[in-house]
Amino acid sequence: MTGTTQQGSAEIAGTRQKLQAAYDGFVARGAKLDLTRGKPSAAQLDLSTELLSLPGAADYMAEGGVDCRNYGGVQGLAEARKLFSGSRGAPAERVVVANNSSLALMHDTIAYALLKGTCDSAAPWSKEGQVAFVCPVPGYDRHFTICKDYGIRMIPVRFREDGPDMEAVERLVAQDASIKGMWCIPKYSNPTGTVYSDAVAERLAAMKTAAPDFRLYWDNAYCVHHLTSERIEIANILELCARHGHGNRPFVFASTSKITLPGAGLAMFAASKENVKWLLGRVSTRTIGPDKINQLRHVRFLKNEAGILQLMDKHRALIAPKFQKVLDIFGEKLGGVRDVSWTRPKGGYFISLDVPKGCASRVIALAKQAGVELTPAGAAYPLGHDPEDRTIRIAPTFPELADVALAAEGVAACVLLAADEKMRGN
Amino acid sequence: MTGTTQQGSAEIAGTRQKLQAAYDGFVARGAKLDLTRGKPSAAQLDLSTELLSLPGAADYMAEGGVDCRNYGGVQGLAEARKLFSGSRGAPAERVVVANNSSLALMHDTIAYALLKGTCDSAAPWSKEGQVAFVCPVPGYDRHFTICKDYGIRMIPVRFREDGPDMEAVERLVAQDASIKGMWCIPKYSNPTGTVYSDAVAERLAAMKTAAPDFRLYWDNAYCVHHLTSERIEIANILELCARHGHGNRPFVFASTSKITLPGAGLAMFAASKENVKWLLGRVSTRTIGPDKINQLRHVRFLKNEAGILQLMDKHRALIAPKFQKVLDIFGEKLGGVRDVSWTRPKGGYFISLDVPKGCASRVIALAKQAGVELTPAGAAYPLGHDPEDRTIRIAPTFPELADVALAAEGVAACVLLAADEKMRGN
Repeated sequence: MTGTTQQGSAEIAGTRQKLQAAYDGFVARGAKLDLTRGKPSAAQLDLSTELLSLPGAADYMAEGGVDCRNYGGVQGLAEARKLFSGSRGAPAERVVVANNSSLALMHDTIAYALLKGTCDSAAPWSKEGQVAFVCPVPGYDRHFTICKDYGIRMIPVRFREDGPDMEAVERLVAQDASIKGMWCIPKYSNPTGTVYSDAVAERLAAMKTAAPDFRLYWDNAYCVHHLTSERIEIANILELCARHGHGNRPFVFASTSKITLPGAGLAMFAASKENVKWLLGRVSTRTIGPDKINQLRHVRFLKNEAGILQLMDKHRALIAPKFQKVLDIFGEKLGGVRDVSWTRPKGGYFISLDVPKGCASRVIALAKQAGVELTPAGAAYPLGHDPEDRTIRIAPTFPELADVALAAEGVAACVLLAADEKMRGN
Repeated sequence: MTGTTQQGSAEIAGTRQKLQAAYDGFVARGAKLDLTRGKPSAAQLDLSTELLSLPGAADYMAEGGVDCRNYGGVQGLAEARKLFSGSRGAPAERVVVANNSSLALMHDTIAYALLKGTCDSAAPWSKEGQVAFVCPVPGYDRHFTICKDYGIRMIPVRFREDGPDMEAVERLVAQDASIKGMWCIPKYSNPTGTVYSDAVAERLAAMKTAAPDFRLYWDNAYCVHHLTSERIEIANILELCARHGHGNRPFVFASTSKITLPGAGLAMFAASKENVKWLLGRVSTRTIGPDKINQLRHVRFLKNEAGILQLMDKHRALIAPKFQKVLDIFGEKLGGVRDVSWTRPKGGYFISLDVPKGCASRVIALAKQAGVELTPAGAAYPLGHDPEDRTIRIAPTFPELADVALAAEGVAACVLLAADEKMRGN
């Protein structure tokens, strides 16, 4: 995994008694902390306070004489599509801006494909028998829930340093026409922080798929969500796929959920002309238009690409220290411990902690007893099943810095105790 | 139909030459008017100007310590559910408040039923072969488009004075297990203005259906949209159905689209406990929560049921004169003309004009040539097919009063010319 520390080989320092005492001390602190979800903190939300009184009484007309207060405009405001076209890698005419959230857009494109087929499907997916998606693991639980809910078989593929194991992906999609899609979070992937290399993106764009209507669900959720001064850029999947003759392959998604307000944001879709036409055809049956006032509100607040990046710098200033605190504490407490490693993400919302095989659920249970809620064991895997019971997702953004430190100390104590129990067989 | 004038029997006054001259005079006015959709006017939208700067910088916490800016709360804010529970006829815990629009909610419940089944379906509707809906006609084109799009067979049933022809409805749903639903706009129906009587509502609640998972799509779009001082109330379909042992039968929908801003409103769903649980289960897969800031914004602006009714009185003051103008002009120009009649709605957004058989598309074409866009002929019927080519939907809310008068004069001239052509066989 990107930025993973070296696997340690050292024995756990200290006796069981000491480890137990450390854990008991943590329980005694009586913490009440929630590290389950990648939620912005109140201080981050305060960065967008201006949105709460925008656009203002006199401001409701958009480009082209559109009264944002009234019906219509199913593709979203022209200025909103322009605002987000940079980070989406598509011209404004191939961007759709919708209500919150991008998860809803992803869900809907799958529901539409199941009920009606994509623009190049021979039939609705639901009429073709089994449908399968390739799922790089560990991944985003809500992606997997959509698949589970609609009976879509999930085929896990491991991550390498620079993206999913492409040999496995290429082999799978070439053979199996029931594989209609693949989940990708190409930048700062949830939860590993993995950044897809240009080579991986190129192979995803070029690979042969048995299904003619195969889709990359390119969930670029963290496209501007940097944690370091290095603003990592990834390949433009729309251009790459078009160059390889697979222009309809990618569905690109993004949202402002972790840019402005998760509870009142916008979602974006970018794709080929044919895909956009297909989506708008579907959406036109569903609604007369999205919330255009909220789009105008975002345009007035964010202004342009530079405005987005400035805002993201402010987010970074608030959350990078929290990530650093977790990394420092893990380094101090868990550094070199055998079979314990974690990611050092350069962006996104998570640290992924790997513990000795069979220990993740025990660590999470111990933490819960001590008042620290972690994402359930297995959540990052299809059907909630982590085959090695190793992966723990840490979401350090929401609590205050001091609480993040407390939680990290506590999680480290839980890891050491659980690992020691495992090693000694009790 | 409710409030329909008596069928006239008089011959058309005047010679063809005069009728043609009247029409030519109308063409010469060079109108550019759009009467196609039930859209509020700019003056109506101005009534909700306050929304454009609400909730304000310091106002984002809702009941129960909910930070509306952040993720979560899939059922909608408690105070928003309370605000709308009166007009929805359900307690707040059985109300869901969602993003705009109610059409999207209706679409989604159908998509969910097709893909997963309702809470008391034996299987997903899409696995059961043909699915059919009863469609009172004339009705709302967007309802019918959803059915068309998903291959749902539409069975038209005529309106009587007090709602759909219940003998036909009862016979159909009792025999045919493929009939899974029925569209109802129970108050000020689009486009006829029909108000379902208590007796009709009772029969809809009590009737035996061959399908155990039959649903009434109770689109109460115009629940507070009165055009006269008489605030007509209809039966509470949720209570009636529960009393008859069919508690899961109704899905009640409504929205603020024509209360506040169509381009930035809220949608509501009310139903049985089981239906609400079912919907929230589906919605939870789709999204982490609706736009809660927009819900708070609406709560602050509308305040309570009385606030909604006061706002609706202001709408009425703006639009009732437009309806009256159309009625006056139709009365003057078309009164007593054979086979010409129109509705005198007590609420809602439309006047439904019936012209002699086979004349509706001709009238609409003549109006278009004169610069007046009317809803396409047949739009109020499944698959766009008005078997008698008689119904024309007039939407007088959007243009200014003077333009409404111009349009009504023009439409009357078109009707007289088309009827005369028809009568004389050319």
